[in-house]
Parts: sequence; structure tokens; C-alpha cells
Amino acid sequence: MGNTFGQAFKVTTWGESHGDAVGVTVDGCPPLLDLTTELIQDQLDRRKPGQSEISTQRREGDKAEILSGVFEGKTLGTPISIAVWNSDARSKDYDEMKSLYRPSHADFTYQAKYGIRNWKGGGRSSARETIGRVAAGAIAKSFLELEYGTQIIAYVKRVGDIEAEIYPESVRADQVESNIVRCPNQATADLMIDAIKLARKNGDSLGGIVECVVLDSPTGLGEPVFDKLDAELAKAMVSLPACKGFEIGSGFSGTYTTGSQHNDPFVMKGDRVGTTTNNSGGVQGGISNGEPIIFRSAFKPTATIMKAQQTVDVFGNEVEMKGRGRHDPCVLPRAVPIVEAMTSLVLADHALRHRGQMGN
Amino acid sequence: MGNTFGQAFKVTTWGESHGDAVGVTVDGCPPLLDLTTELIQDQLDRRKPGQSEISTQRREGDKAEILSGVFEGKTLGTPISIAVWNSDARSKDYDEMKSLYRPSHADFTYQAKYGIRNWKGGGRSSARETIGRVAAGAIAKSFLELEYGTQIIAYVKRVGDIEAEIYPESVRADQVESNIVRCPNQATADLMIDAIKLARKNGDSLGGIVECVVLDSPTGLGEPVFDKLDAELAKAMVSLPACKGFEIGSGFSGTYTTGSQHNDPFVMKGDRVGTTTNNSGGVQGGISNGEPIIFRSAFKPTATIMKAQQTVDVFGNEVEMKGRGRHDPCVLPRAVPIVEAMTSLVLADHALRHRGQMGN
Amino acid sequence: MGNTFGQAFKVTTWGESHGDAVGVTVDGCPPLLDLTTELIQDQLDRRKPGQSEISTQRREGDKAEILSGVFEGKTLGTPISIAVWNSDARSKDYDEMKSLYRPSHADFTYQAKYGIRNWKGGGRSSARETIGRVAAGAIAKSFLELEYGTQIIAYVKRVGDIEAEIYPESVRADQVESNIVRCPNQATADLMIDAIKLARKNGDSLGGIVECVVLDSPTGLGEPVFDKLDAELAKAMVSLPACKGFEIGSGFSGTYTTGSQHNDPFVMKGDRVGTTTNNSGGVQGGISNGEPIIFRSAFKPTATIMKAQQTVDVFGNEVEMKGRGRHDPCVLPRAVPIVEAMTSLVLADHALRHRGQMGN
Amino acid sequence: MGNTFGQAFKVTTWGESHGDAVGVTVDGCPPLLDLTTELIQDQLDRRKPGQSEISTQRREGDKAEILSGVFEGKTLGTPISIAVWNSDARSKDYDEMKSLYRPSHADFTYQAKYGIRNWKGGGRSSARETIGRVAAGAIAKSFLELEYGTQIIAYVKRVGDIEAEIYPESVRADQVESNIVRCPNQATADLMIDAIKLARKNGDSLGGIVECVVLDSPTGLGEPVFDKLDAELAKAMVSLPACKGFEIGSGFSGTYTTGSQHNDPFVMKGDRVGTTTNNSGGVQGGISNGEPIIFRSAFKPTATIMKAQQTVDVFGNEVEMKGRGRHDPCVLPRAVPIVEAMTSLVLADHALRHRGQMGN
Repeated sequence: MGNTFGQAFKVTTWGESHGDAVGVTVDGCPPLLDLTTELIQDQLDRRKPGQSEISTQRREGDKAEILSGVFEGKTLGTPISIAVWNSDARSKDYDEMKSLYRPSHADFTYQAKYGIRNWKGGGRSSARETIGRVAAGAIAKSFLELEYGTQIIAYVKRVGDIEAEIYPESVRADQVESNIVRCPNQATADLMIDAIKLARKNGDSLGGIVECVVLDSPTGLGEPVFDKLDAELAKAMVSLPACKGFEIGSGFSGTYTTGSQHNDPFVMKGDRVGTTTNNSGGVQGGISNGEPIIFRSAFKPTATIMKAQQTVDVFGNEVEMKGRGRHDPCVLPRAVPIVEAMTSLVLADHALRHRGQMGN
Repeated sequence: MGNTFGQAFKVTTWGESHGDAVGVTVDGCPPLLDLTTELIQDQLDRRKPGQSEISTQRREGDKAEILSGVFEGKTLGTPISIAVWNSDARSKDYDEMKSLYRPSHADFTYQAKYGIRNWKGGGRSSARETIGRVAAGAIAKSFLELEYGTQIIAYVKRVGDIEAEIYPESVRADQVESNIVRCPNQATADLMIDAIKLARKNGDSLGGIVECVVLDSPTGLGEPVFDKLDAELAKAMVSLPACKGFEIGSGFSGTYTTGSQHNDPFVMKGDRVGTTTNNSGGVQGGISNGEPIIFRSAFKPTATIMKAQQTVDVFGNEVEMKGRGRHDPCVLPRAVPIVEAMTSLVLADHALRHRGQMGN
Repeated sequence: MGNTFGQAFKVTTWGESHGDAVGVTVDGCPPLLDLTTELIQDQLDRRKPGQSEISTQRREGDKAEILSGVFEGKTLGTPISIAVWNSDARSKDYDEMKSLYRPSHADFTYQAKYGIRNWKGGGRSSARETIGRVAAGAIAKSFLELEYGTQIIAYVKRVGDIEAEIYPESVRADQVESNIVRCPNQATADLMIDAIKLARKNGDSLGGIVECVVLDSPTGLGEPVFDKLDAELAKAMVSLPACKGFEIGSGFSGTYTTGSQHNDPFVMKGDRVGTTTNNSGGVQGGISNGEPIIFRSAFKPTATIMKAQQTVDVFGNEVEMKGRGRHDPCVLPRAVPIVEAMTSLVLADHALRHRGQMGN
Repeated sequence: MGNTFGQAFKVTTWGESHGDAVGVTVDGCPPLLDLTTELIQDQLDRRKPGQSEISTQRREGDKAEILSGVFEGKTLGTPISIAVWNSDARSKDYDEMKSLYRPSHADFTYQAKYGIRNWKGGGRSSARETIGRVAAGAIAKSFLELEYGTQIIAYVKRVGDIEAEIYPESVRADQVESNIVRCPNQATADLMIDAIKLARKNGDSLGGIVECVVLDSPTGLGEPVFDKLDAELAKAMVSLPACKGFEIGSGFSGTYTTGSQHNDPFVMKGDRVGTTTNNSGGVQGGISNGEPIIFRSAFKPTATIMKAQQTVDVFGNEVEMKGRGRHDPCVLPRAVPIVEAMTSLVLADHALRHRGQMGN
């Protein structure tokens, strides 16, 4: 019952990984926005499996079909429905999952919650569900660019213990796409790629951190006291598969400082009020202040590994299972477009909510 | 427009710090629950200012009045309205705030968003707003205890760089309350208290981490894919004043491990499926798995300090301001009951949502 | 759990008739709107009991207190909380209600639903709950007037079988207020007053119809396919105590006509597209078309009567009860400001939702 | 932005009449419910065009495809996505609509609201949109039957001025289906059919009334004060294309009676509290009381007629247009399954909401 995100730019995803299709409905997108299938496909292609030697070798076409809400290349203001058909679902890879709970997957909790699950795959807990998010996010992203000139760029900041030095405000989208790990620091990217290849070779997996920066966000977005912009971003990020943490601005490391070190002094930047430092991460009191919005999300190492593991089966027997199937040894590179999508959804939703109340 | 939290146990807070009152309405609380003013007051007293030598010396009575929804000591199933009158509002302390934007406060962003603000205090961005959260949370906490035997305990894990070694599952509520910093490790608590006193003496402030553990949570709570239990907790925490980060289970540090280290093996614990480790933090696929739910929230150092700071005024002049007023040099001790309250709201809401769909 | 109305202009009412107070919280009201207690009190005075010889003789001061959301006479964009203290609650009038279910009241259904009720009065089902609606509606009404020049005027169209001939588009607010039954046709008003007095004398009660017209509504309000403007008005009206029906434009009588009689031909009215007839009642496809919005609500005769009636008690005995207490023999005159309030809430909510999506 | 209905059993419809497909997503349906395509198709077949000589001769296959949420014949508790492909869209029938506003259609208001419309047909305002409602309603209906034994039966009560005498509580579903006009009184049905045929011959159309009865509804459904059961039914009905009014129980005619005539005396009916009359229509104080729920919806005569009409074009010219295309001369027979569907959605939603709060 929690498959809808947003209040004004309202997104509902549907579909299990091994059902017929996955998709999304967007309700509330403003009319008269240029929208093509290509715009959505471009983002889906960044997300899709099999795109590089360090991602899963499953090949899914992931072709988007826009079923409603667009007429002669423009949005109608009515719900936009997008579907992506599933294919290449080698369910035999999953046969033993009928009775096994894979460690640190959602098999057990779905069974415990609903009393049933589509054991042929991860069902709704599969990363495949994020296709709907990315498709909807592509629309939101385009809206924000066209309406406010806002840029949303995410990238891999750390894989395992390999961390890139990156100055968020100067990262360009093409730099992120210039290598398969989506880290704009090319030297570090190479190290990350090697680490991921090694993890795969070991039948193991790696986690890390995705950082995201929003440039030229409108000032004034965020709806205190509960729907603060950073609170909504936190929810958006932690709702992603494998995400275990969120921090904005100085985040956890800022807790080691004192107030006099941490406060961001205000200055005039031309006509607008700005800050000299950005420990706030572009959000103060839950509202965007016009500085770049900068936050980080922690992704745990992929739960699917090729090593033997202890677990139990649905009958209550303790058993050993061996990983099978084709999975990413590290979700980070493919998480990048998903982080951008969720960020776009949060900002578009809040832009519409804000202008509803304010009339502009 | 974001002053409501929850879908089934629905909480709406209202009130500015320097208006007449602050309060909350709870819609959706089940009927026939025992509810007294004392139950609410006990939690408000843990939150209130002036309670110890390391908190602000403002004295606010913070007496709760239940205005509706309760009859002969029991809830009616109708909205519960609770008000707390404001007092001791020394607005002269705030006079210069009429024209100044305090660094890393919400003065500027509220003005930018709404074109107006109650400059006599922090308004809705004041920690005073959390009174409504704590009052509502007290009801939710009681519901969870009575209905499911669930215990929610938060405590100060770290202040500045002073971190306590604590085994979450064995912390008792009375240990948390045994010292004024609300750290259940007494030796570390003393060091924290000294550090906070020193920060105050320096006219400065400290941040830190609150950790929270939920014992005997019902299994199956959380509504994928967006309203996952951990995603909702993330939003609840980051919606708190001064909170800059959230992590659950292994969180950010888990990203340094490999999948084979990180996965939580399943075993039978008597009749139920459990895990031998708890890197998941009690939530898998966004749904509680029956293990203790463990998460941490990062609170930045209090923005109000007594040192001189650079800022701008509402006319666009760059000026120097000096801190005044009476404020906490560290919000952590008073944040503890607030973290518990928000956690209670998330869990009660999800308990009601779950049993709506499942019928039990 | 259904005490909130609206999505963008969001109103939550609380309070039982014989509790301490009743009130409302408005979340989403735009900032910088002029708002005084008088503006709210004026509407509450139109609703309050004891205002004339044909209404209940209970005297309730019904004084509004604004507790938050307003600063120096202007709204802040934060939640506006309004409370009205209860008084003159002669609960002894209600003593026998502890064990009796009054026919066609909500005593039985509340007990059946919640397992508990505040038997000292009607609780949430009391017309007293509408105080919160009227207070919030006064704000919405003012917003619509100031922002769009919209006028919302309701009046009594029929009492029992006494129906007034009224041309909706030319009714003025002062005409409605010129007599105690709130029927702008003075001759018919006198007949209605006599009929109500006679009903009271007989220990009986009357029902009737309130008609409402909205002039100069913005074009384009209403959110198909479920939140159509007329659908939302229908819900708003039928949610009122004693309301059993709703119709817009030609309504039920239009079903006797043919399409060629019923269709409203389009013409140019100056620069704008208008219609020569208005069987649509100002709403087409669920969206306002710029013509006057005209609808009617049916209110049943007041359930509280002074005659003896058959009923059962909470122990399952069939008993006879006699009406007591002080009640309106006809709710229509006092329903007029309540209908206006609910209409204002619907329109303000949709105005904000529309401009959120459209950006103006 | 209003394409979602319900809070716990949450339905989102999408699709324009002349786009690729129409469909619906249901979020919140309980798991482990038996669900087949046939169950949905049966209801769609009752709704589909071309089913009889008195409905439109457009032939649409209207074949439902379940794309997600069902596994091995049972619901998963995850979103159920259903799509129906459009076909037989003779858009040339609509060519002149590119520039014309059809009287009493939504062409003008959609254009005015969104600045764009899919002029090839009615878009979202087309009755075709109700396919999604009927598909979702079929699931809700089945849930109510299986879980509570609830029966929901609608039928045509009146066409034009031909009204059938029907005793709602004894109508059986097979009687409704026994003739093409869906009036369970066979003699009156014949008159209705003749009247509809005559209207078509004249190039004109008829309206009328659909009555609906709910038998064995659970007691206690409805969420005061805004989401009362009757208020939600009112919204559900008036949100349907061509619906101009709603009344429950005695409705508008009850306003001619006095309280002593109108009140429903309580009696014991075996173990349960019941009423001897049912002017309340099964709902008191907005909550179901265990008696049959009975209400009526008014449908205007179909706006599409074959006669010449005055209108304006998009350029502001006043012009004459002639009706074309294939349309129902009377929507009532096909409205019957749609009314049942919306009623099912309201009741299922409230059943889930109620048991969330009450725990059973």
C-alpha cells in the first residue's frame, strides 16, 4: 500500500520482476511539456542491466512504452502511464528460491508480511522495480531543467574503501558517463572498476556511496515541518533497494565540529543571499536556500553473492545455499541514474506544491 | 503544507514558538486506549527546556491539555487535540532578529519561501514545534506497548568526538534517564557532560549522534516500495531540527564490507526465523524482520552560539551579529525523547496500515 | 480517521460537543493573507445557536481564538489553529442518552463502530463539529474573494413544502441575512418562519433544501477523474450532518429532459466562451466553465423531536423515549453559513491544486 | 492530479479514449485473494459498448490484461496493474472536434484548464475511462463478497419519465441482467427500451436514475466527519460521467416530511439493533448501521446527439454543429456496472480503513 510517491507530482509504480511487465503512472505532471519516449529511454538505458562488463550479464531490452498522457509530443496534464515488458526471465535460476530465504534479501519479510510472494524472483523488492522510478524521474528531471534550469547530477563517490576526491559543484554529467563505474574522477574510477572485478571473481560484492548535487534549484522548496526537503530526500533515498543511510551537507562528519565551525555565514552573492560555506548542504530549516543541494546515500554490498551461505528454508530447516543467477557485484554504477530520478521526483513534487501555495 | 505525518495514525502539529500555543491533533488513534494527561506530560517533561544544567535555562511549564478525543480516561477513536500554552517568551531577546538572518537557522529560508516570518523567534523551525510530536508520540508509544509489547529506547551515542560503547539490545530506559545527558554508559556520560559545559563556556556548541533501538517490534511492518519502514524512519528523523543524517543497521560503515561479510545468515530462533547478525538493522526489503530495529541520527552542533558571526540583514547589508538568548549548547539530550516519539509515530502508523490490509 | 478535508488547503477539525473545546487546523493557507479574529467570528455568529426565535435556545458564546499561523494580522503560511471553548453544556439534558440510542442519530453507529462514545452529547456527530468547518471556511472564503473576486452565497430554497422562487445569479448576501430563515425571498421567508414555529409547537421538525451559487469562480477548477469539482462539492455537502442529497445544475429534474433540451449551447460572451443555458450548473466534465456554479443540498428534518419515539437501549431492550433538550426544529437557517464554508473549502483547495499544476 | 480514489484500497486510473490503452493500478488490495482475468472480464463485458441494440454500435473488445500483482491465481498484496488496449478508434469521426467545442461535453473545460486536449475523442472525460474503475471495482466486489458476504446490486430505476416500481431489498443480480436496459421490473424495462429506441430514432437522448442497494454490508463503515460513508458514495457517484446528483435513503423527497415521520425507530432484529423503516438508507452519522444501504444517482441525457446544435469553435466563432459518431442514446444501462464498481471501491476502502483502526 506504499507504492505511491509524491503529493503533487504523484508517481505510482507497479510490477514484479518476474511478472509480465513493470511500469509507472505519473499523475500531476504539468501539461504542454515536451515528452518523447527517447527522453525516458535514455535514462532507462543508463539503468539497464548488461550495459557493461561490471554489471549483471542479464540482458533486458527495457523498452519504454508511453501508453497515455501524451498527445502529439506534449503532455496533456492527464496521467502518464509507462510500461516496460519483462523478458529474459530465466526463472529456472530461481527454482530453489521457492523454498529458501536468501540472506539479506526480502524473501522472508515479504512472506512474513503478506503470506505469499512471487518466489520466481525478487518481486517488488527487485531492483527491477526501479524502472518505473527512472521513467517517471526522467519526466521530472526534464520538467525541472525546462522550468527552472535545475541540474541534478549523481555519481559514485566511493566503492568499498576506494573514495574519489570530487568537487561536487563542478562535476559535469558527461564526466559521470565517461566511464562504466560512473565516477567522474577517472583515476579513481579505474581503481573502483578493478575492485568490482575482483569482488566478482571472488563471488563476492561491494557497497559504497553515491553523492548527488543539485545545481540551480529554486529557492524555497520544502514543506516544513514534516515534508522538509531533506526529509523527503532521505525517504526517497532510503526507499531504494540496498540503501542503508542518507546524509546531507556535513552529515555525520559535521557532528564532530562545533557550531562556530559548522555555521554557514551569510553573504551577498550579487543580488541574492548566499553562504560562504555549505555545511547545510543547500537546505536550511528543511527549505532550499539557493546553494547547491549536496547529499550522499550509502548502499550496502549486493546481497546476492556466489559464495555458500547459511540460511533457513520455508519449512524451518537450517540449510546451506549457494548463490546463482546473474547479478551486479556492485549496484553503485546503476544506482546513479536511480538516485537522480528519485531526486528529480522530490524536487518536482515540491516545486509544484510550493507554487500551489504561493501562486508562482 | 507539510504539517501532517502518517497515513493511518495521522498527526498534525501547529504553533509558532512565540505565538499563543503549540499543539497537535492525532487522527486515527484506535478507541478504548487508556490515555491520561500524565502519560503525555511525562514525555513532555523529558523534552522540556531548563531541565538540567546542560540545557537551556529558559523555563517553560509545557503543561499539556487534552482538548478532545478522550472520554472517562479512554480514547474515543475521534481526533485527540492537545495544546501547550507558550510562556516566558522573552521576545526582547529576539529584537535584532527582525532584521538579521541568523547563520544556519531558518530565518532566511522562511522569509524566502513565504515572504513573511514570525521574527520574534524561530516560529515553526523552533525546536518548540516538537512539543506536538512528543505529545502525539507518547500516545503512539503507549499503543505499541499495550498492543504489541514493543519497546522504543533512544539514547545519546556520541557528543562531538566522545562516543559511548553501548550494546543496543540490552539498554534499559531507566539507564538512559539516569544521567542528564541521556547516555546509558555512565562513564562516558560524565565525559559528555564535561564537554558540553566546556562548549557552553566557550560560547560554542556541540553535535553528535542519537541511537535508537526498537525491541519486540511486530514483524511485517513497512509498506514497499516507497513507504518502507526504514525510509519512513529516515524521513521522520531528518525532519527533526538539526538532524543531518540517518543510517540503519550497518549504515555508512557497512559500505566498507563485502556481501559475504555483510549478509545476515538466517537461523531458527525457537519457532521464528531470525538472523545471527543484524547488519540489516531489523529491516529487510523495507519490512521489519523481527530482529531489533537499530538506527542512528546525526545532529549538527546547535546553530545558536554566543560568538560573533558574519551574516546579512534583510536589507542586503553584510553585518556582524552576536548570539544572545538562552539556548542548548547541545541538543542531543533533549533530542532523545523526540527521536523516540517520531519512531513511535512511524511504527504505530505502520502497525495500523498493516493490519488494515491484512485484517489482523 | 476521516477528519481532514482537502489536499492543498487542508483542514482538520477536532472536538466533541461536550468536551472542552472544538476547533480546526488549516494547513496550506497561503501566506500574507489578511486575517483577523473578526473575519472568523462573523461567520461563527451566523452559525451559532440561540441567534433567533426559530433556532435552538442553547446559548453558546462560540468565541474563536486564533492560536497560531497569524502574525501582525497576516497569515504566515504555517498551520492556522483555531479553538472555540465549549460552555453551557447542560449534560443533565443528556443523562438518559447514556443508555438510549436516539432514533436517526449517530448514537448507535458510533457505539457499533468504536465500542465507545461520549454519551453526554452527540460527540463528533453533533452539529457543533461544524464550528471548525465554518472557521476554516471563513479563511477560504476570504482568500477566494481577495484572490479571484469569487462570491459564494447560499440560502434556504425550501422548508418542508414551502419553496421560494429565486433567481440564483441575482441573490445578494445582504438579502439572505435580512431575515432569520435566510431565504432571500422575503414573502416566502415569512411562510417558512411560520411553518418552523408550528413544527416546534408540535414538538416536531422540518427539513428542506439549501441552494448555493458561486459567482466569478475561476475557470478550470476541478481535478478529473475522481476529484471533479462537482464530486468534491457532493462529498462536502453530504458530509454535513442531516444532509441526504446533492444535485448540481439541472440535477434530478434534468433527468426528465432529452439531450437536445438539456445541452447548454456555447456562445461568445465578450471575450470568453459561455453558455446560453446553465443546466450544467457551471461544471462540465468535472471542471468549472466560468458560468455560475449552482447546486442544492437536501437536509432531512431534525432528528431530535419532542414527541415520544420507539427505540432500544444499549442492553437490547425496546423502550419508549421522549425528546428533551434544546434543539433546532429546522437546521436549514443555520446550515446556510456551513454550506458556504464547505463550498469555500472545496474551491480554495482546488484553486491551489490547479495553480500548483499550472504555475499560475 | 485527481486520478486516484481511496486511501487504503487505492485505485489510480489512466488512459485517454483515443490513446493506446486505458487501465488502472490497485494498491492496497489484500494478498491471498483469488483473482482471475475472467472475474474482471465479466464486469468489463457488462460495461462494454456494442453489447445490445440500445447501446452504441462501436465494438471494442475491451480485453483485460493483468500485468502485475497476481501470482498463481492469488493476489500478492502488491499493486495490481490492469490494461485494456484501445481499438476501433475511428478518429475520423472526430475530425471536426479539433476545432469545435461540443455542447455539454468537456472539450471546452479541458482546453481551458490544461491549454491542450486530445481532440481525437473525449480523452479522460470519455466514458472509456471507466474501464479502469470497473476492472478495479470487480476486485473490490469480490473481496467484499468473500470477506463479508456483502452483495452490491445496481439497476435502472428510471429512464426519462418511465419509472419502475422496485423493492430494493429483494432485487437479484440475475433479474438485473435479464434484459438489456438492466431494469429488474421486466414490464417497465420494455417501456424503457422503447423510449430509448425512440430517442435514438429522433437523434436525441435520455437520462434517468440508477438505484443501488448494498446488502449485508458490515456495520461500522464510514470515517466521520469528512469521509462519511454517504459522503464518499456521493463523491464516487458524482465523479461519474453524466452524473448530476446523488441521494441516499429518503433523499430529496424526505425533505418534505417531518422528523416524527422521518426518524427510523430502533428495534431488536434478533441479536442486532435494526430499524423498522430505512429513511436513513443504511447510513447514520456517516456510518453504516447494518440495514441495507440504498442510494440513487441521477444521470443526465447523453450530451452527444445527432441533432444540429449551436456552439463555438476554438477561434471564437459561433457555429452550428451536427452530431456524428456512434454513441449511447442513454447511458443508464451501461452505468449500472459502473455504479456497482464505484460502490465496491468505496466499501472496500472503508472496510480496510476500519479494520486498520479497530484491528479486526
